[in-house]
Amino acid sequence: MKQSILPFKTRKDAPKDEVSLNAKLLIQAGFIHKEMAGVYSYLPLGLRVIEKIKGIIRNEMETLGASEVSLTALQDKTLWEKTGRWDDEVVDNWFKTTLKSGGELGLGFSHEEPLTALLRDHVSSYKDLPFSIFQFQTKFRNELRAKSGIMRGREFLMKDLYSFSTTDEEHAAFYDRVKNAYVRIFDKVGLGEVTFPTYATGGSFSKFSLEFQTITSSGEDTIYVDREKKVAINKEILSDERCAELGLDRENLEEVTTVEVGNIFNLGTKFSEPLGLVYKDEAGNRIPSVMGCYGIGLGRLMGTIAEVFADEKGLVWPKSVAPFDVHLVALPDAEGTVMAAAEVIYETLSAKMPIMFDDRAVSVGAKLADADLIGIPTRIVIGAKSLVEGNVEITDRKSGETTTVALSEILNYLHG
Amino acid sequence: MKQSILPFKTRKDAPKDEVSLNAKLLIQAGFIHKEMAGVYSYLPLGLRVIEKIKGIIRNEMETLGASEVSLTALQDKTLWEKTGRWDDEVVDNWFKTTLKSGGELGLGFSHEEPLTALLRDHVSSYKDLPFSIFQFQTKFRNELRAKSGIMRGREFLMKDLYSFSTTDEEHAAFYDRVKNAYVRIFDKVGLGEVTFPTYATGGSFSKFSLEFQTITSSGEDTIYVDREKKVAINKEILSDERCAELGLDRENLEEVTTVEVGNIFNLGTKFSEPLGLVYKDEAGNRIPSVMGCYGIGLGRLMGTIAEVFADEKGLVWPKSVAPFDVHLVALPDAEGTVMAAAEVIYETLSAKMPIMFDDRAVSVGAKLADADLIGIPTRIVIGAKSLVEGNVEITDRKSGETTTVALSEILNYLHG
Repeated sequence: MKQSILPFKTRKDAPKDEVSLNAKLLIQAGFIHKEMAGVYSYLPLGLRVIEKIKGIIRNEMETLGASEVSLTALQDKTLWEKTGRWDDEVVDNWFKTTLKSGGELGLGFSHEEPLTALLRDHVSSYKDLPFSIFQFQTKFRNELRAKSGIMRGREFLMKDLYSFSTTDEEHAAFYDRVKNAYVRIFDKVGLGEVTFPTYATGGSFSKFSLEFQTITSSGEDTIYVDREKKVAINKEILSDERCAELGLDRENLEEVTTVEVGNIFNLGTKFSEPLGLVYKDEAGNRIPSVMGCYGIGLGRLMGTIAEVFADEKGLVWPKSVAPFDVHLVALPDAEGTVMAAAEVIYETLSAKMPIMFDDRAVSVGAKLADADLIGIPTRIVIGAKSLVEGNVEITDRKSGETTTVALSEILNYLHG
Repeated sequence: MKQSILPFKTRKDAPKDEVSLNAKLLIQAGFIHKEMAGVYSYLPLGLRVIEKIKGIIRNEMETLGASEVSLTALQDKTLWEKTGRWDDEVVDNWFKTTLKSGGELGLGFSHEEPLTALLRDHVSSYKDLPFSIFQFQTKFRNELRAKSGIMRGREFLMKDLYSFSTTDEEHAAFYDRVKNAYVRIFDKVGLGEVTFPTYATGGSFSKFSLEFQTITSSGEDTIYVDREKKVAINKEILSDERCAELGLDRENLEEVTTVEVGNIFNLGTKFSEPLGLVYKDEAGNRIPSVMGCYGIGLGRLMGTIAEVFADEKGLVWPKSVAPFDVHLVALPDAEGTVMAAAEVIYETLSAKMPIMFDDRAVSVGAKLADADLIGIPTRIVIGAKSLVEGNVEITDRKSGETTTVALSEILNYLHG
């Protein structure tokens, strides 16, 4: 993509009305726009990061054999009354609205109820189970406070996966597979080393739930990690007894602040029972399906990646989620020969990889500062001096190391 | 995809609470699920059709040089007050909701206001223009009645494109390019022959707007088409004077009922002026940008395609938007050899093209009826008898024609 046709610009300074690092950086670099507190639009660079994250997650969901759907935001009150979750006293972050034709609707903060109800048309026998279903869908949560940028939105994109099994054993086996898929997802987006499966409060159907917590200085949660065992326990349930149960030695635990980037829950029959999602077993008994749910907030994950890797110059994207692999920067020259040469290099490279080409008529300083701020992993700088020598300069955004590479060797270098 | 792992089933009969053909068929075939009137979830087959349509549209938008964004559903009242569109007396299909922290919000029925406001941070000089921006985004419209299935939803996915130019001439040139892109889009989804650019009421900034109207028997609109000139005029503005203006001879016009599948509007400075999206020209004058907007409802387009091509057996998808290219159907056999052979054929073909494999243990009749209902363009039937002869039967869903093809020739036949 040519930067000159991108309608959106970086800012000199971070916005003053943001307190969170992720929103400050992502707005300044032109990835997102704040509509109001907790409500952010995604601009082309931000949308590309979201799409990359989506691709990584979708791939793992399909490997699990899950089917993709897209449910609705508008929610039927009667379904949520059946599970007792319509009441604002029970769920305190509903957005509700009214139909012109009469009746109250909710905006989905989660989708257990509609999905469970929908499946009644499709499940009758034990032979129809097990299966799992996922979606990338916008959630609405009427948070009283929203100061964490895209880490805690009032409207945000979530991947939610739901599993439906016949027995607890069948459920447990799938739950373990999702756990492994989540470990792979956080590895692939670059957070593997700082993300820990963390035991937390379980709810009514199991002793523990499992959170995936990522260490960041701005984290809202406190957990205790056993780095060697690659597992952690949330402060809210820390006790000697619990540690013993989980095979952890309290002396090996380290206190860290974290952000929750994913969670997996046993739901048991909490939803299938009141909503009547039952199957007939071989003997003809009607039995409610055993369910699990598994969430990853895409904005929260993007915000976490932004905060974990950022440095004093701006964003630093891991290649797997970067908006582009390469940022080609043509330095200004009076004769226009640099721009002409860069154009040829752009045409050649863009057929091989996602590349952003800074073809703007702005100063060297503005170009390099923008490239640092935007944080594409590899930068190729084309300047008059090195061009005459038949070279370009390639800089790794993360380490800052610069290498002089012959024009004819660029592709070999990038793929090497 | 193996049909046995798909959690969603077809129904024997069309749902009785639907009056529209598109919803009857799409629910029966397991493409969509009705949450409530005008609110439909997309199941895996339906979502695949939407994604195919998205791909076709995105490709044309990128060819126009438009940048993709994703704005929010939640809308800030103050922006819409500036253009006079907040009032329910002016816009009668708002969904509105309330923030826990205080204040009223809207759910976007369109996105002129937030996009225009957002761009104020990015436009200052004439050098920043022209550009265009598009998104695939969920719209909410509080329709009093919603009986048209996915053709008129209360919540639906829309592609909206907005253009921003310095002058009327620059705007007109881009508008023409979009018109041509829309012609290509409707061609590609298979509706080219029955879709007509149609002059309609213009609004405050131009004499006419342009609708893209598709001929269907269930259409809500009436237009007059000149089939030779490939253009039409909406009944609402038909007059001898208008025909003369548009170079149409009233005697060559044919009355047809249609569905509006796309529209393009001149917006002039209706939004840029009140919201302050101005640029400085070379002399330093502050001038509001000239805008256009261009919409295609994805559900409506999918519903139209469903209705236009359906026959008495069910859906008939054009290949460009079909959920899969090929439906491989293994007929049941006691020994299981047919299934084993079909499995090998599935593995071979699925590496080459999107294919759905009916590996279910159900009757021949159920399999063939489902295949007709789902409407994938090409069906390959593997049965014991033809298999022994080294053949399969390949049926074209649209024509119903069946050809016997040697196993070794399947790929050549499909690509031929």
